[in-house]
Amino acid sequence: MTLYELDGRDGRRFSTNSWRSKLALAHKGLSFDSIPTPFTRIGEIGDGSFKTVPVLHDGDAWFGDSWAIATHLEEAYPDRPSLFGGAAGREFARFVQHWQESQLGPFAITLIVTDLYDCVVPEDRDYFRISREKRLGKPLEEAVAGRDKRVEGFRRLCEPLRRRVSETPFLGGDRPTYADYIAFGPFQWARAVTPFRLVVPGDPVNDWFQRCLDLYDGLARHSPGYD
Amino acid sequence: MTLYELDGRDGRRFSTNSWRSKLALAHKGLSFDSIPTPFTRIGEIGDGSFKTVPVLHDGDAWFGDSWAIATHLEEAYPDRPSLFGGAAGREFARFVQHWQESQLGPFAITLIVTDLYDCVVPEDRDYFRISREKRLGKPLEEAVAGRDKRVEGFRRLCEPLRRRVSETPFLGGDRPTYADYIAFGPFQWARAVTPFRLVVPGDPVNDWFQRCLDLYDGLARHSPGYD
Repeated sequence: MTLYELDGRDGRRFSTNSWRSKLALAHKGLSFDSIPTPFTRIGEIGDGSFKTVPVLHDGDAWFGDSWAIATHLEEAYPDRPSLFGGAAGREFARFVQHWQESQLGPFAITLIVTDLYDCVVPEDRDYFRISREKRLGKPLEEAVAGRDKRVEGFRRLCEPLRRRVSETPFLGGDRPTYADYIAFGPFQWARAVTPFRLVVPGDPVNDWFQRCLDLYDGLARHSPGYD
Repeated sequence: MTLYELDGRDGRRFSTNSWRSKLALAHKGLSFDSIPTPFTRIGEIGDGSFKTVPVLHDGDAWFGDSWAIATHLEEAYPDRPSLFGGAAGREFARFVQHWQESQLGPFAITLIVTDLYDCVVPEDRDYFRISREKRLGKPLEEAVAGRDKRVEGFRRLCEPLRRRVSETPFLGGDRPTYADYIAFGPFQWARAVTPFRLVVPGDPVNDWFQRCLDLYDGLARHSPGYD
Protein backbone atom coordinates (compact mmCIF):
# COMPACT_ATOMS: atom_id res chain seq x y z
CA MET A 1 0.00 0.00 0.00
CA THR A 2 1.34 3.41 -0.95
CA LEU A 3 0.29 6.80 0.42
CA TYR A 4 1.21 9.93 -1.47
CA GLU A 5 1.32 12.66 1.12
CA LEU A 6 2.32 16.29 1.05
CA ASP A 7 6.03 17.00 1.11
CA GLY A 8 7.53 19.83 3.14
CA ARG A 9 10.96 21.31 3.80
CA ASP A 10 13.29 19.25 6.03
CA GLY A 11 10.84 16.40 6.40
CA ARG A 12 8.07 18.55 7.81
CA ARG A 13 4.67 16.91 7.29
CA PHE A 14 2.06 19.58 7.87
CA SER A 15 -0.87 18.49 5.69
CA THR A 16 -4.00 18.13 7.83
CA ASN A 17 -5.58 15.73 5.37
CA SER A 18 -2.50 13.56 5.00
CA TRP A 19 -2.47 13.15 8.80
CA ARG A 20 -6.07 11.96 8.71
CA SER A 21 -5.06 9.14 6.37
CA LYS A 22 -1.81 8.24 8.12
CA LEU A 23 -3.58 7.90 11.46
CA ALA A 24 -6.40 5.95 9.81
CA LEU A 25 -3.87 3.49 8.37
CA ALA A 26 -2.16 3.16 11.74
CA HIS A 27 -5.54 2.68 13.43
CA LYS A 28 -6.18 -0.25 11.07
CA GLY A 29 -2.70 -1.62 11.72
CA LEU A 30 -1.85 -1.38 8.04
CA SER A 31 1.70 -0.64 6.96
CA PHE A 32 2.31 1.58 3.98
CA ASP A 33 5.03 3.26 1.97
CA SER A 34 4.93 7.04 2.05
CA ILE A 35 5.82 9.08 -1.01
CA PRO A 36 6.21 12.74 -0.05
CA THR A 37 4.94 14.84 -2.93
CA PRO A 38 5.21 18.62 -3.45
CA PHE A 39 2.03 20.56 -4.27
CA THR A 40 3.37 21.22 -7.74
CA ARG A 41 3.95 17.54 -8.52
CA ILE A 42 0.57 16.14 -7.46
CA GLY A 43 -0.37 16.00 -11.15
CA GLU A 44 2.30 13.32 -11.67
CA ILE A 45 0.61 10.83 -9.35
CA GLY A 46 -1.08 7.80 -10.97
CA ASP A 47 -3.04 8.67 -14.08
CA GLY A 48 -2.52 12.37 -13.56
CA SER A 49 -6.11 13.07 -12.49
CA PHE A 50 -5.46 13.93 -8.85
CA LYS A 51 -5.63 17.53 -7.68
CA THR A 52 -4.87 17.03 -3.99
CA VAL A 53 -3.08 14.68 -1.63
CA PRO A 54 -3.39 12.33 0.18
CA VAL A 55 -3.75 9.71 -2.54
CA LEU A 56 -3.85 6.03 -1.57
CA HIS A 57 -2.79 3.27 -3.94
CA ASP A 58 -4.08 -0.03 -2.59
CA GLY A 59 -3.67 -3.01 -4.89
CA ASP A 60 -5.19 -1.98 -8.20
CA ALA A 61 -7.31 0.81 -6.73
CA TRP A 62 -6.62 4.50 -6.26
CA PHE A 63 -8.35 6.82 -3.78
CA GLY A 64 -7.87 10.55 -4.05
CA ASP A 65 -9.64 12.11 -1.09
CA SER A 66 -9.14 11.61 2.63
CA TRP A 67 -12.81 10.70 3.18
CA ALA A 68 -12.73 8.18 0.32
CA ILE A 69 -9.56 6.70 1.81
CA ALA A 70 -11.16 6.37 5.25
CA THR A 71 -14.34 4.74 3.97
CA HIS A 72 -12.31 2.41 1.74
CA LEU A 73 -10.17 1.29 4.66
CA GLU A 74 -13.23 0.71 6.81
CA GLU A 75 -14.99 -1.36 4.15
CA ALA A 76 -11.99 -3.25 2.77
CA TYR A 77 -10.55 -4.19 6.17
CA PRO A 78 -13.56 -4.97 8.36
CA ASP A 79 -11.57 -7.43 10.48
CA ARG A 80 -9.30 -4.63 11.69
CA PRO A 81 -10.31 -2.17 14.45
CA SER A 82 -13.23 -0.05 13.31
CA LEU A 83 -12.28 3.45 12.26
CA PHE A 84 -15.74 4.95 12.79
CA GLY A 85 -17.38 2.63 15.32
CA GLY A 86 -20.43 1.99 13.15
CA ALA A 87 -22.86 4.04 11.10
CA ALA A 88 -23.42 6.71 13.75
CA GLY A 89 -19.67 7.13 14.12
CA ARG A 90 -19.42 7.79 10.42
CA GLU A 91 -22.05 10.53 10.78
CA PHE A 92 -20.07 11.91 13.71
CA ALA A 93 -16.81 11.97 11.76
CA ARG A 94 -18.46 13.67 8.83
CA PHE A 95 -19.89 16.40 11.07
CA VAL A 96 -16.50 16.92 12.70
CA GLN A 97 -14.94 17.17 9.24
CA HIS A 98 -17.38 19.93 8.29
CA TRP A 99 -16.78 21.66 11.62
CA GLN A 100 -13.02 21.50 11.19
CA GLU A 101 -13.06 22.63 7.57
CA SER A 102 -15.58 25.45 8.00
CA GLN A 103 -14.57 26.76 11.43
CA LEU A 104 -11.12 25.73 12.69
CA GLY A 105 -9.28 25.52 9.37
CA PRO A 106 -10.20 28.91 7.89
CA PHE A 107 -9.32 30.64 11.18
CA ALA A 108 -6.11 28.69 11.80
CA ILE A 109 -4.66 29.51 8.40
CA THR A 110 -4.79 33.20 9.31
CA LEU A 111 -2.60 32.41 12.32
CA ILE A 112 0.12 30.33 10.65
CA VAL A 113 0.15 30.91 6.91
CA THR A 114 3.52 32.68 6.87
CA ASP A 115 5.03 29.78 8.81
CA LEU A 116 3.50 27.33 6.36
CA TYR A 117 5.04 29.34 3.52
CA ASP A 118 8.46 29.02 5.16
CA CYS A 119 8.05 25.23 5.33
CA VAL A 120 6.94 24.30 1.84
CA VAL A 121 9.62 22.84 -0.42
CA PRO A 122 11.43 25.46 -2.55
CA GLU A 123 9.67 24.49 -5.77
CA ASP A 124 6.26 25.05 -4.13
CA ARG A 125 6.89 28.55 -2.81
CA ASP A 126 5.47 30.53 -5.72
CA TYR A 127 2.46 28.24 -6.06
CA PHE A 128 1.76 28.45 -2.35
CA ARG A 129 2.01 32.23 -2.07
CA ILE A 130 -0.08 32.92 -5.16
CA SER A 131 -2.83 30.39 -4.40
CA ARG A 132 -3.11 31.28 -0.70
CA GLU A 133 -3.04 35.04 -1.27
CA LYS A 134 -5.85 34.58 -3.75
CA ARG A 135 -7.84 32.52 -1.25
CA LEU A 136 -7.19 34.93 1.62
CA GLY A 137 -7.63 38.05 -0.48
CA LYS A 138 -4.47 39.67 0.88
CA PRO A 139 -0.70 39.19 1.21
CA LEU A 140 0.24 36.37 3.60
CA GLU A 141 1.96 38.80 5.94
CA GLU A 142 -1.20 40.88 6.24
CA ALA A 143 -3.31 37.79 6.81
CA VAL A 144 -1.42 36.85 9.98
CA ALA A 145 -1.26 40.38 11.42
CA GLY A 146 -2.44 40.63 15.01
CA ARG A 147 -2.40 36.91 15.60
CA ASP A 148 -1.27 37.17 19.23
CA LYS A 149 -4.61 38.75 20.02
CA ARG A 150 -6.76 37.02 17.41
CA VAL A 151 -5.76 33.54 18.56
CA GLU A 152 -8.19 34.02 21.45
CA GLY A 153 -11.03 33.83 18.95
CA PHE A 154 -9.63 30.58 17.60
CA ARG A 155 -9.49 29.15 21.11
CA ARG A 156 -13.15 30.03 21.66
CA LEU A 157 -14.03 28.20 18.45
CA CYS A 158 -12.40 25.10 19.95
CA GLU A 159 -14.89 25.08 22.84
CA PRO A 160 -17.01 22.08 21.67
CA LEU A 161 -13.83 19.98 21.40
CA ARG A 162 -12.58 21.33 24.72
CA ARG A 163 -15.77 20.43 26.55
CA ARG A 164 -15.88 16.93 25.12
CA VAL A 165 -12.25 16.01 25.76
CA SER A 166 -12.67 17.32 29.30
CA GLU A 167 -15.24 14.57 29.79
CA THR A 168 -13.58 11.69 27.95
CA PRO A 169 -10.05 11.02 26.62
CA PHE A 170 -11.00 11.17 22.95
CA LEU A 171 -13.90 12.31 20.78
CA GLY A 172 -14.39 8.59 20.13
CA GLY A 173 -14.68 7.95 23.86
CA ASP A 174 -12.06 5.87 25.65
CA ARG A 175 -10.31 5.27 22.34
CA PRO A 176 -9.79 7.50 19.32
CA THR A 177 -11.85 7.19 16.18
CA TYR A 178 -11.63 8.94 12.84
CA ALA A 179 -13.36 11.98 14.34
CA ASP A 180 -10.25 12.50 16.46
CA TYR A 181 -7.91 12.25 13.49
CA ILE A 182 -9.89 14.92 11.66
CA ALA A 183 -9.90 17.31 14.61
CA PHE A 184 -6.21 16.60 15.17
CA GLY A 185 -5.25 18.03 11.79
CA PRO A 186 -5.08 21.78 12.43
CA PHE A 187 -3.05 21.32 15.60
CA GLN A 188 -0.47 19.08 13.92
CA TRP A 189 -0.44 21.48 10.96
CA ALA A 190 0.67 24.24 13.32
CA ARG A 191 3.04 22.07 15.32
CA ALA A 192 4.95 21.12 12.16
CA VAL A 193 5.74 24.68 11.12
CA THR A 194 5.79 27.10 14.02
CA PRO A 195 6.44 27.56 17.73
CA PHE A 196 3.36 29.82 17.80
CA ARG A 197 0.77 28.03 19.91
CA LEU A 198 -2.83 27.51 18.83
CA VAL A 199 -3.56 26.11 22.29
CA VAL A 200 -1.49 26.40 25.44
CA PRO A 201 -0.44 23.94 28.13
CA GLY A 202 -3.23 23.52 30.66
CA ASP A 203 -5.91 23.71 27.98
CA PRO A 204 -7.80 20.38 27.78
CA VAL A 205 -7.53 20.67 24.00
CA ASN A 206 -3.76 20.62 24.36
CA ASP A 207 -3.94 17.61 26.70
CA TRP A 208 -6.03 15.77 24.09
CA PHE A 209 -3.60 16.80 21.35
CA GLN A 210 -0.73 15.37 23.37
CA ARG A 211 -2.64 12.10 23.75
CA CYS A 212 -3.10 11.99 19.99
CA LEU A 213 0.63 12.62 19.44
CA ASP A 214 1.34 9.54 21.56
CA LEU A 215 -0.88 7.19 19.55
CA TYR A 216 0.65 4.32 17.59
CA ASP A 217 4.07 4.53 19.21
CA GLY A 218 4.18 8.29 18.76
CA LEU A 219 3.64 8.25 15.01
CA ALA A 220 2.71 11.92 14.92
CA ARG A 221 5.06 13.00 17.70
CA HIS A 222 8.08 11.62 15.87
CA SER A 223 7.31 13.83 12.89
CA PRO A 224 9.44 17.01 12.98
CA GLY A 225 7.79 19.93 14.74
CA TYR A 226 7.87 22.35 17.62
CA ASP A 227 7.04 20.88 21.04
CA MET B 1 -44.64 9.35 32.52
CA THR B 2 -44.64 13.06 33.27
CA LEU B 3 -42.46 15.75 31.71
CA TYR B 4 -42.16 19.10 33.42
CA GLU B 5 -41.31 21.53 30.65
CA LEU B 6 -40.96 25.29 30.49
CA ASP B 7 -44.16 27.29 30.36
CA GLY B 8 -44.58 30.33 28.15
CA ARG B 9 -47.25 32.90 27.37
CA ASP B 10 -50.19 31.67 25.24
CA GLY B 11 -48.94 28.10 25.05
CA ARG B 12 -45.59 29.04 23.55
CA ARG B 13 -43.01 26.33 24.21
CA PHE B 14 -39.63 27.82 23.48
CA SER B 15 -37.25 25.90 25.77
CA THR B 16 -34.49 24.30 23.69
CA ASN B 17 -33.84 21.66 26.30
CA SER B 18 -37.50 20.77 26.77
CA TRP B 19 -37.71 20.15 23.01
CA ARG B 20 -34.78 17.77 23.21
CA SER B 21 -36.70 15.65 25.70
CA LYS B 22 -40.08 15.87 23.97
CA LEU B 23 -38.60 14.71 20.67
CA ALA B 24 -36.65 11.98 22.47
CA LEU B 25 -39.87 10.69 24.04
CA ALA B 26 -41.63 10.81 20.67
CA HIS B 27 -38.66 9.02 19.05
CA LYS B 28 -39.10 6.23 21.58
CA GLY B 29 -42.84 6.17 20.99
CA LEU B 30 -43.51 6.92 24.64
CA SER B 31 -46.53 8.94 25.64
CA PHE B 32 -46.28 11.41 28.47
CA ASP B 33 -48.18 14.07 30.35
CA SER B 34 -46.74 17.55 30.03
CA ILE B 35 -46.77 19.94 32.95
CA PRO B 36 -45.84 23.44 31.78
CA THR B 37 -43.86 25.12 34.53
CA PRO B 38 -42.76 28.77 34.81
CA PHE B 39 -39.08 29.47 35.54
CA THR B 40 -40.07 30.78 38.96
CA ARG B 41 -41.91 27.60 39.95
CA ILE B 42 -39.26 25.02 39.02
CA GLY B 43 -38.40 24.77 42.71
CA GLU B 44 -41.84 23.28 43.38
CA ILE B 45 -41.18 20.21 41.23
CA GLY B 46 -40.67 16.88 43.02
CA ASP B 47 -38.49 17.16 46.11
CA GLY B 48 -37.65 20.77 45.34
CA SER B 49 -34.06 20.06 44.30
CA PHE B 50 -34.40 20.88 40.59
CA LYS B 51 -32.97 24.11 39.21
CA THR B 52 -33.91 23.69 35.56
CA VAL B 53 -36.47 22.01 33.32
CA PRO B 54 -37.03 19.59 31.67
CA VAL B 55 -37.60 17.18 34.55
CA LEU B 56 -38.85 13.68 33.80
CA HIS B 57 -40.80 11.63 36.33
CA ASP B 58 -40.80 8.00 35.19
CA GLY B 59 -42.24 5.50 37.67
CA ASP B 60 -40.39 6.14 40.92
CA ALA B 61 -37.44 7.87 39.30
CA TRP B 62 -36.76 11.54 38.60
CA PHE B 63 -34.33 12.92 36.01
CA GLY B 64 -33.47 16.59 36.04
CA ASP B 65 -31.28 17.22 33.01
CA SER B 66 -31.97 16.69 29.32
CA TRP B 67 -28.87 14.51 28.86
CA ALA B 68 -29.82 12.36 31.87
CA ILE B 69 -33.34 12.03 30.44
CA ALA B 70 -32.00 10.93 27.06
CA THR B 71 -29.61 8.35 28.45
CA HIS B 72 -32.31 7.05 30.80
CA LEU B 73 -34.76 6.60 27.94
CA GLU B 74 -32.13 4.83 25.84
CA GLU B 75 -31.19 2.44 28.66
CA ALA B 76 -34.65 1.83 30.12
CA TYR B 77 -36.39 1.26 26.77
CA PRO B 78 -33.87 -0.68 24.66
CA ASP B 79 -36.64 -2.39 22.67
CA ARG B 80 -37.77 0.97 21.27
CA PRO B 81 -35.97 2.74 18.36
CA SER B 82 -32.48 3.72 19.42
CA LEU B 83 -32.10 7.39 20.25
CA PHE B 84 -28.34 7.50 19.66
CA GLY B 85 -27.66 4.61 17.29
CA GLY B 86 -25.03 3.05 19.53
CA ALA B 87 -21.99 4.20 21.48
CA ALA B 88 -20.55 6.33 18.67
CA GLY B 89 -23.90 8.05 18.24
CA ARG B 90 -23.85 8.97 21.90
CA GLU B 91 -20.42 10.56 21.40
CA PHE B 92 -21.80 12.39 18.36
CA ALA B 93 -24.80 13.72 20.26
CA ARG B 94 -22.62 14.89 23.11
CA PHE B 95 -20.32 16.77 20.72
CA VAL B 96 -23.31 18.38 19.03
CA GLN B 97 -24.63 19.39 22.44
CA HIS B 98 -21.36 21.13 23.26
CA TRP B 99 -21.34 22.75 19.83
CA GLN B 100 -24.90 23.99 20.22
CA GLU B 101 -24.42 25.24 23.77
CA SER B 102 -21.06 26.94 23.21
CA GLN B 103 -21.57 28.32 19.68
CA LEU B 104 -25.17 28.53 18.45
CA GLY B 105 -26.92 29.19 21.75
CA PRO B 106 -24.82 32.11 23.03
CA PHE B 107 -25.05 33.82 19.63
CA ALA B 108 -28.76 33.14 19.10
CA ILE B 109 -29.77 34.63 22.44
CA THR B 110 -28.34 37.97 21.30
CA LEU B 111 -30.70 37.84 18.32
CA ILE B 112 -33.97 36.97 20.08
CA VAL B 113 -33.74 37.76 23.79
CA THR B 114 -36.26 40.62 23.68
CA ASP B 115 -38.74 38.34 21.91
CA LEU B 116 -38.16 35.67 24.52
CA TYR B 117 -38.83 38.26 27.20
CA ASP B 118 -42.14 39.08 25.56
CA CYS B 119 -43.14 35.41 25.63
CA VAL B 120 -42.39 34.36 29.17
CA VAL B 121 -45.38 34.09 31.48
CA PRO B 122 -46.10 37.31 33.43
CA GLU B 123 -44.79 35.96 36.73
CA ASP B 124 -41.42 35.17 35.08
CA ARG B 125 -40.78 38.58 33.56
CA ASP B 126 -38.70 40.09 36.35
CA TYR B 127 -36.73 36.89 36.86
CA PHE B 128 -36.02 36.61 33.15
CA ARG B 129 -34.89 40.21 32.65
CA ILE B 130 -32.66 40.27 35.71
CA SER B 131 -31.02 36.88 35.12
CA ARG B 132 -30.48 37.40 31.38
CA GLU B 133 -29.19 40.94 31.72
CA LYS B 134 -26.71 39.65 34.27
CA ARG B 135 -25.61 36.87 31.90
CA LEU B 136 -25.38 39.17 28.88
CA GLY B 137 -23.83 42.05 30.79
CA LYS B 138 -26.22 44.61 29.32
CA PRO B 139 -29.91 45.50 28.96
CA LEU B 140 -31.85 43.06 26.75
CA GLU B 141 -32.59 45.81 24.25
CA GLU B 142 -28.89 46.59 23.86
CA ALA B 143 -28.04 42.92 23.50
CA VAL B 144 -30.17 42.53 20.37
CA ALA B 145 -29.07 45.79 18.72
CA GLY B 146 -27.93 45.38 15.13
CA ARG B 147 -29.33 41.91 14.77
CA ASP B 148 -30.30 42.33 11.13
CA LYS B 149 -26.62 42.55 10.27
CA ARG B 150 -25.23 40.32 13.00
CA VAL B 151 -27.42 37.37 12.05
CA GLU B 152 -25.01 36.77 9.16
CA GLY B 153 -22.40 35.73 11.72
CA PHE B 154 -24.85 33.28 13.24
CA ARG B 155 -25.54 31.80 9.83
CA ARG B 156 -21.81 31.27 9.27
CA LEU B 157 -21.63 29.44 12.59
CA CYS B 158 -24.27 27.04 11.26
CA GLU B 159 -21.99 25.95 8.42
CA PRO B 160 -21.09 22.47 9.78
CA LEU B 161 -24.79 21.67 10.14
CA ARG B 162 -25.52 23.19 6.72
CA ARG B 163 -22.88 21.08 5.00
CA ARG B 164 -24.02 17.87 6.62
CA VAL B 165 -27.75 18.29 6.01
CA SER B 166 -26.94 19.14 2.40
CA GLU B 167 -25.53 15.61 2.10
CA THR B 168 -28.09 13.65 4.09
CA PRO B 169 -31.61 14.37 5.43
CA PHE B 170 -30.63 14.39 9.11
CA LEU B 171 -27.50 14.53 11.24
CA GLY B 172 -28.35 10.94 12.10
CA GLY B 173 -28.37 10.02 8.39
CA ASP B 174 -31.58 8.93 6.73
CA ARG B 175 -33.38 9.19 10.04
CA PRO B 176 -33.02 11.63 12.91
CA THR B 177 -31.20 10.80 16.10
CA TYR B 178 -30.74 12.70 19.32
CA ALA B 179 -28.03 14.82 17.66
CA ASP B 180 -30.78 16.30 15.48
CA TYR B 181 -33.01 17.07 18.43
CA ILE B 182 -30.20 18.97 20.12
CA ALA B 183 -29.35 21.01 17.02
CA PHE B 184 -33.07 21.65 16.48
CA GLY B 185 -33.40 23.52 19.76
CA PRO B 186 -32.22 27.03 18.88
CA PHE B 187 -34.33 27.15 15.72
CA GLN B 188 -37.50 26.10 17.50
CA TRP B 189 -36.63 28.52 20.32
CA ALA B 190 -36.72 31.36 17.80
CA ARG B 191 -39.74 30.06 15.89
CA ALA B 192 -41.81 30.06 19.08
CA VAL B 193 -41.25 33.70 19.90
CA THR B 194 -40.47 35.81 16.85
CA PRO B 195 -40.95 36.24 13.11
CA PHE B 196 -37.27 37.24 12.95
CA ARG B 197 -35.52 34.50 10.98
CA LEU B 198 -32.33 32.81 12.13
CA VAL B 199 -32.19 31.02 8.77
CA VAL B 200 -34.05 31.85 5.58
CA PRO B 201 -35.95 29.78 3.03
CA GLY B 202 -33.53 28.23 0.57
CA ASP B 203 -30.93 27.60 3.26
CA PRO B 204 -30.37 23.83 3.68
CA VAL B 205 -30.47 24.43 7.43
CA ASN B 206 -34.01 25.71 7.02
CA ASP B 207 -34.94 22.70 4.89
CA TRP B 208 -33.64 20.39 7.62
CA PHE B 209 -35.50 22.40 10.27
CA GLN B 210 -38.72 21.97 8.31
CA ARG B 211 -38.11 18.22 8.15
CA CYS B 212 -37.67 18.18 11.92
CA LEU B 213 -40.91 20.13 12.39
CA ASP B 214 -42.72 17.40 10.44
CA LEU B 215 -41.46 14.54 12.62
CA TYR B 216 -43.89 12.52 14.73
CA ASP B 217 -47.02 13.86 13.07
CA GLY B 218 -45.80 17.42 13.28
CA LEU B 219 -45.25 17.41 17.04
CA ALA B 220 -43.06 20.52 16.92
CA ARG B 221 -44.89 22.19 14.04
CA HIS B 222 -48.19 22.10 15.93
CA SER B 223 -46.65 24.06 18.77
CA PRO B 224 -47.48 27.78 18.47
CA GLY B 225 -44.93 29.82 16.56
CA TYR B 226 -44.14 31.92 13.53
CA ASP B 227 -43.94 30.04 10.22
